[in-house]
Amino acid sequence: MSKDKVQIFDTTLRDGEQVPGCKLDTEQKLIIAERLDNLGVDIIEAGFPISSPGDFASVSEIAKIVKNATVCGLTRAVKKDIEVAAEALKYAKKPRIHTGIGTSDSHIQHKFKSNREEVLERAVQAVSYAKTFVEDVEFYAEDAGRTDNEYLARVCEAVVEAGATVLNIPDTTGYCLPEEYGAKMKYLKENVKGIEKAILSCHCHNDLGLATANSISGVINGARQIECTINGIGERAGNTSLEEVVMILRQHPYLNLDTSINSRLLYSTSQMVSQKMGMPVQPNKAIVGSNAFAHSSGIHQDGVIKNRETYEIIDPEEVGVTESSIVLTARSGRAALAYRAKKVGYELTKVQLDEVYKEFLKFADRKKEIDDADIHEIVSSADVTIQSIA
Amino acid sequence: MSKDKVQIFDTTLRDGEQVPGCKLDTEQKLIIAERLDNLGVDIIEAGFPISSPGDFASVSEIAKIVKNATVCGLTRAVKKDIEVAAEALKYAKKPRIHTGIGTSDSHIQHKFKSNREEVLERAVQAVSYAKTFVEDVEFYAEDAGRTDNEYLARVCEAVVEAGATVLNIPDTTGYCLPEEYGAKMKYLKENVKGIEKAILSCHCHNDLGLATANSISGVINGARQIECTINGIGERAGNTSLEEVVMILRQHPYLNLDTSINSRLLYSTSQMVSQKMGMPVQPNKAIVGSNAFAHSSGIHQDGVIKNRETYEIIDPEEVGVTESSIVLTARSGRAALAYRAKKVGYELTKVQLDEVYKEFLKFADRKKEIDDADIHEIVSSADVTIQSIA
Repeated sequence: MSKDKVQIFDTTLRDGEQVPGCKLDTEQKLIIAERLDNLGVDIIEAGFPISSPGDFASVSEIAKIVKNATVCGLTRAVKKDIEVAAEALKYAKKPRIHTGIGTSDSHIQHKFKSNREEVLERAVQAVSYAKTFVEDVEFYAEDAGRTDNEYLARVCEAVVEAGATVLNIPDTTGYCLPEEYGAKMKYLKENVKGIEKAILSCHCHNDLGLATANSISGVINGARQIECTINGIGERAGNTSLEEVVMILRQHPYLNLDTSINSRLLYSTSQMVSQKMGMPVQPNKAIVGSNAFAHSSGIHQDGVIKNRETYEIIDPEEVGVTESSIVLTARSGRAALAYRAKKVGYELTKVQLDEVYKEFLKFADRKKEIDDADIHEIVSSADVTIQSIA
Repeated sequence: MSKDKVQIFDTTLRDGEQVPGCKLDTEQKLIIAERLDNLGVDIIEAGFPISSPGDFASVSEIAKIVKNATVCGLTRAVKKDIEVAAEALKYAKKPRIHTGIGTSDSHIQHKFKSNREEVLERAVQAVSYAKTFVEDVEFYAEDAGRTDNEYLARVCEAVVEAGATVLNIPDTTGYCLPEEYGAKMKYLKENVKGIEKAILSCHCHNDLGLATANSISGVINGARQIECTINGIGERAGNTSLEEVVMILRQHPYLNLDTSINSRLLYSTSQMVSQKMGMPVQPNKAIVGSNAFAHSSGIHQDGVIKNRETYEIIDPEEVGVTESSIVLTARSGRAALAYRAKKVGYELTKVQLDEVYKEFLKFADRKKEIDDADIHEIVSSADVTIQSIA
């Protein structure tokens, strides 16, 4: 059975860039856009054209250079926004306008001081107007995570009728649990008339650390697009991490879902975005953190040396990391010490290893991480005669 | 209906410390242990006593100073490990020995070159032996995430029979999806004879970014302990983040689950651990990242200024963050500019704001983040006469 494709909608350059202190200039955005195109993302959300002259220029330039992906621009449900986005996207091979409005009662009352019927009407008008410029129109129901399902379904039905090709269901505040978010998708799939004419899209925020799990729950329940960013960057606690959802689908083949991402470019893309945005990736970040494939405890190192799959589910090379590292610390055991000692030139017998290991532990209680130079020092301090094989 | 309590088992000082380059000395560990005790964690896993002399000393000293929490030491299913752990824990008010063995076929075959019956026997012997030293014995079935449920249930039944008070079901490689991990807990809850005599515990790793979601799925399905670390630190991509699971339970009261954590200490504890371990927290880390409560896009800022709950589900003060910040960037709208301008002393009329905003956008396209000094410059460059109200 061939796998269903999940579209990857990358919003690193739009929602991802909404990070304090992360303004990119057009040139930097072009480099990232080109890389995203090579990575194999299906849609690049390039910016919010009406928000500033710089953003307009970036979207417009990106539209010109992207070869494969759809290029998308964000708008509010406002005529002028849509006109400006259409203008910015006019050179795109595959343009998409992303328009929408808040649908939760909190947004309707506090943000718009409006009511449900008026908001529904504005949603339909925005989609219809965007359709006069481009074929591909994505609608977002902002704060869908806190929107009553029945009303949300009505809005979705109306905008699909008006021509929306994609329905974005954002958990704007990152509040949903995976079960709830999945149930929302399932509800829409089953209750929106004409739903087969549109793709449901997951757009999750990470305020409670659940963006990835919610997106996966969304596609298990019928969505076929995930909106995400490299390294999970974005406003507040950020968006869904592209690298995480891509590797989860790949590691769970029985879900019968896959993406077009070339996973071997994930690590270098992560590094590029981190560097250009000045946004550090924490060492324990899944998939792309510097420690993601590093083993330091003795039990784990011993296991990995005997058989990689004991503790590693992903071959590091699959995501572009050259090799998993066996880092020597006070947590390391004899197996790891012997393994690293051999790498620097000492083939230790069992008796020798026992002596060297004692010395190693004393050393490692004082120093956090033991490097190759330390190994030579440890071996020479140990109470044994060992010849280097190097 | 009163809420069910979920025990928080903090392993920052054991599994969390298994990070390359993160060796803490005993003095640093004592400071962190004291803070964890004040934070309200139920169990502090203080170390792996047999692994090194330094670790032994740390566990022993922590056992002496902790006032409220249970103090726990890790062992393999090995007699000597258990004896050493018992010795290290002898001054603890509430000692717990945490012993166990790998139960997945991968671990049984590659790591132990053994078989299921032998491993089950070793598990029972380890628990029985630990029981001769302490009342509270936690058993871990390493790589339970990839262990066949039926065999796992047999192991659990046997160790409960031998006196285990807690059953730790680790997803050692971070492979499970939330549904699977929850289903495993449910299966054990329903199929282990005597399960009412023990607490099921979640121990999840973050290799695919799912540790938090898996732990929550675990407690929804019957577990009553979560093993976690501050900032989610740990080997590879780390462990479940304490701050995330605590706040998820608090933000979803209908789950009827809660912990004893004093959430107002979360932010400062996160900072303390990050500093002492030299492990940076990425700005977009949920709950404790420096951007977790920062808003920079115009739409969001406008929403938050009108009503905090439009975009924030957690009051920052609840986790010890003084206030959510309105950061001015090219993404910001008029509302945010007016808000910040007022804070530095300019009360702008609508007409003035329009002029100042034009100037602001030009400025913000060149500079990533606009600070108070910039606001004065922008106002003075704008084509209006504005008197400071300061």
